Amino acid sequence: MTTLEFSLPVQALIPRVEECMRSQANGYRPELRIALDQLIKAGGKRIRPTVTLLTSALLGVDQERAITLGAAVELLHTATLVHDDLIDGALTRRGNPTVNAQWDSSATILAGDFLFSQAAYLAAEVGSIDVMRMFAKTLSTIVNGEISQAFSLNTFTQVDDYYERIYAKTASMFELAARAPAYIVGAEEEISAALLTYGYEIGMAFQIVDDILDFSSDSATIGKPVTNDLSNGLLTLPIFLYAKENESDSLVLKAIEGEQLSEDEIQNLIANVRNSNAIAESLEQANEHQENARKAIKDFPEQTEKEALLGLADYVSARLL
Amino acid sequence: MTTLEFSLPVQALIPRVEECMRSQANGYRPELRIALDQLIKAGGKRIRPTVTLLTSALLGVDQERAITLGAAVELLHTATLVHDDLIDGALTRRGNPTVNAQWDSSATILAGDFLFSQAAYLAAEVGSIDVMRMFAKTLSTIVNGEISQAFSLNTFTQVDDYYERIYAKTASMFELAARAPAYIVGAEEEISAALLTYGYEIGMAFQIVDDILDFSSDSATIGKPVTNDLSNGLLTLPIFLYAKENESDSLVLKAIEGEQLSEDEIQNLIANVRNSNAIAESLEQANEHQENARKAIKDFPEQTEKEALLGLADYVSARLL
Repeated sequence: MTTLEFSLPVQALIPRVEECMRSQANGYRPELRIALDQLIKAGGKRIRPTVTLLTSALLGVDQERAITLGAAVELLHTATLVHDDLIDGALTRRGNPTVNAQWDSSATILAGDFLFSQAAYLAAEVGSIDVMRMFAKTLSTIVNGEISQAFSLNTFTQVDDYYERIYAKTASMFELAARAPAYIVGAEEEISAALLTYGYEIGMAFQIVDDILDFSSDSATIGKPVTNDLSNGLLTLPIFLYAKENESDSLVLKAIEGEQLSEDEIQNLIANVRNSNAIAESLEQANEHQENARKAIKDFPEQTEKEALLGLADYVSARLL
Repeated sequence: MTTLEFSLPVQALIPRVEECMRSQANGYRPELRIALDQLIKAGGKRIRPTVTLLTSALLGVDQERAITLGAAVELLHTATLVHDDLIDGALTRRGNPTVNAQWDSSATILAGDFLFSQAAYLAAEVGSIDVMRMFAKTLSTIVNGEISQAFSLNTFTQVDDYYERIYAKTASMFELAARAPAYIVGAEEEISAALLTYGYEIGMAFQIVDDILDFSSDSATIGKPVTNDLSNGLLTLPIFLYAKENESDSLVLKAIEGEQLSEDEIQNLIANVRNSNAIAESLEQANEHQENARKAIKDFPEQTEKEALLGLADYVSARLL
């Protein structure tokens, strides 16, 4: 399955998801329309709404509601990115200027808040209290994770903290994307739980692969400026796995103890990690999550959409190729 | 009716509203609990949940849901204040340090986002899609109004812009507080519309009175540091009414044309406005809104809660005495 082939069954609906997102600026300040248009144009692979559209199709959710839900999920994701980029001082994302690169911080905060409110509006439009509740809880989980990071930077010394952080940051949103359609049709608990697991596992794999890419790629590949997580004091899986097998490396000890590394030390540590088994071992963990995702839905009836969801699981690590 | 007497019928429920708000930090980072506790302890008159509790009682909404809804409304209000204070650089509110006075801007943004998410969660708990939809739209309206301010400071030259701004800033939330209970019980359209009008008119009166207070009071009275709106380039009703009758005053012209006034000029203009009819005329407009609020519910059956809502309308301008 070639890249993004998994999205074929619902590919035609993605422009409608984007149109639904775009229409959320109707009736509001022109600056908000401009910002929203730019954010949508900046793109992204729309993996989250693709998951939503696929599971919706699998469960027989009517197309209009599936599109609305997909737009709600992607808009929530977009809103969190707007505040994230402001907090991180990131000036570009996927090669495009961020909102905070163009607006002052006050306007950027408000732009993010606006997207939150319109995402919540779309979630309400879906017409399910359960969806709404999960939607709100997902945002709480994401923000709670970021608060942890804001207050504990350089004190995440345990790999378990890492797993918790990437759950909050990424997997929780994939859980929402995959499971929400089950609420809409009132699916059996078994189906609902399987989709939750699928979302969780895909999300964990996705973030681990992202964190591996941070060690291996350049700006062109990942569409972000190359500032390694380490430069931001952020310890990710490859570091933890490297530390486990290289306890005597003073650089990794320093990093894990939360001391600030010099730029040279960071580059040295990155080189050491790249030359170690830590990258392969991290990938192995990502693959396990993917395998769990595939297993979670293996008993679903054979349908194009199921094949696509299985393909999407493969795609996550294919990004490394 | 003495101050706050209007809240008597539901006074006993306010601590339960606060407890419901407080419990939203359960299971999240300890810093969020501390921030939320401080925000709740800092108090406020809880006028918005009081409106919600009163209209809920009037319509026979069960108490648990009324409390949840009141907490959702007050938490949404609190969340907007957290971001507002950050944007305005306000270090105290009602004599207490703001979140941004204690946390850096990143953590403050996230704290506000967290409160948004938990407010949305509580709104979902109420179990009405209509409530949820109005809730999201209210936040959109508020944020859209602030975006207008962020992009058009010093270019609000029309009194109509002022009315639009205070609708977005204050009246929209009172509309939510007053009307949401009608959705819960599926009240007749006439009742629902009357409560919407009540909320709108109370909210408009409330903000006009606040803006009058900005011209007349010192820090002790309003519990905010005395930095007149004018110092922040914000034109409010007294200025517009003063300008209408004093077209030749070069200071007010300068202010309306968006030029920056010196501190001396600001103090002079404030003195001029205070000595003019503009304050009394502004109060007259506030009183009209109050009267409209009272009229909106005049045909409701005689009940303690109706009396309380009428008393609340009186209270708004009694704050000036």
